Amino acid sequence: MSLSDVKGELRILVAEREWAQFHSPENLIKSIAIESGELLECVQWNNKVDPDLVRTELADVLTYAYLLADRMGWDPDEVVLDKLRLTRDKYPVEKSRGKSTKYDQL
Amino acid sequence: MSLSDVKGELRILVAEREWAQFHSPENLIKSIAIESGELLECVQWNNKVDPDLVRTELADVLTYAYLLADRMGWDPDEVVLDKLRLTRDKYPVEKSRGKSTKYDQL
Amino acid sequence: MSLSDVKGELRILVAEREWAQFHSPENLIKSIAIESGELLECVQWNNKVDPDLVRTELADVLTYAYLLADRMGWDPDEVVLDKLRLTRDKYPVEKSRGKSTKYDQL
Amino acid sequence: MSLSDVKGELRILVAEREWAQFHSPENLIKSIAIESGELLECVQWNNKVDPDLVRTELADVLTYAYLLADRMGWDPDEVVLDKLRLTRDKYPVEKSRGKSTKYDQL
Repeated sequence: MSLSDVKGELRILVAEREWAQFHSPENLIKSIAIESGELLECVQWNNKVDPDLVRTELADVLTYAYLLADRMGWDPDEVVLDKLRLTRDKYPVEKSRGKSTKYDQL
Repeated sequence: MSLSDVKGELRILVAEREWAQFHSPENLIKSIAIESGELLECVQWNNKVDPDLVRTELADVLTYAYLLADRMGWDPDEVVLDKLRLTRDKYPVEKSRGKSTKYDQL
Repeated sequence: MSLSDVKGELRILVAEREWAQFHSPENLIKSIAIESGELLECVQWNNKVDPDLVRTELADVLTYAYLLADRMGWDPDEVVLDKLRLTRDKYPVEKSRGKSTKYDQL
Repeated sequence: MSLSDVKGELRILVAEREWAQFHSPENLIKSIAIESGELLECVQWNNKVDPDLVRTELADVLTYAYLLADRMGWDPDEVVLDKLRLTRDKYPVEKSRGKSTKYDQL
């Protein structure tokens, strides 16, 4: 299934429930942070992840992220690809290989 | 551009830099939460969003979310669509229309 | 130095800079989440913490938490102690000893 | 009630339940971020806060922040006061008065 289907499905969900009134960029941004916290709860006390739980919580993060992208008029994949080009420049292969160091400390 | 391109591009970025060793599910989950905090900083003191800034920070959230999905062997769109079906059931149109109330209080 | 000193010092900092106008409960809550993300960045890729960095970021979380408490008319210590009583009841010693299990699954 | 009471009460809670084994700095840091997300949920869809709910969630953030400070051998108030001195220097009154601008853009 392609991304346009997801976008369409999400739009229908929101339209049917008249939820667009709640989906200001600010509220969607807060929602992404809230759901990220719930995702983090999956690894609160150890690093053994329960895939079903992670999938459920990741879904919520992604859903609000897609809704925010759509609200701003963006395609999520394009958002990622544009940033990826910058990341490539900030982390040249020869300097960053095998390191988790942040670009400003490379 | 389709999602498979994004997945491929992300895989190349990570492979070239030998970053897979850092990308345990737990570390990716922490990274999503960290980037969500940076996205939230865009609306820390008011709700007027700078689109360029939001796009940059949303990109980071989405990138780590895509990387986590790929690490778990999932397609991000499928993850969203599966949850969407549950959301539809938890929030029937007639009960949830025009309300931001959580399903357990509907 | 006692807590009343901290409260007093924070009030002076805010008053001198006329920052109270920005310190709505909502903005302080967002700020706590933002700073928690920065604190989390200290352990993004591993669990070896740099004490100086952790102290700096924990300070920001605590500062906004104290400011929120003061804005709501609460003493931070009382807030913690009141909840602690509930936690004791939700996690009886004999059921929760040596377990990180959440109370609703004990 | 003074801070030493809170510290003592928290230590008893943890000791009785043998929870210290779960309270690595990393786990406490994750817990602070998780609870900050729950606190943020109080203002997810609007900025009208329910004081009882905020108090409960703020308590959890503060509890883990106090536990982290104690684990690192720090007094929470000292942590805040030390940073406050830096904040004063980074935000001189005459430059920052009435502004929410970040210090590096002042």
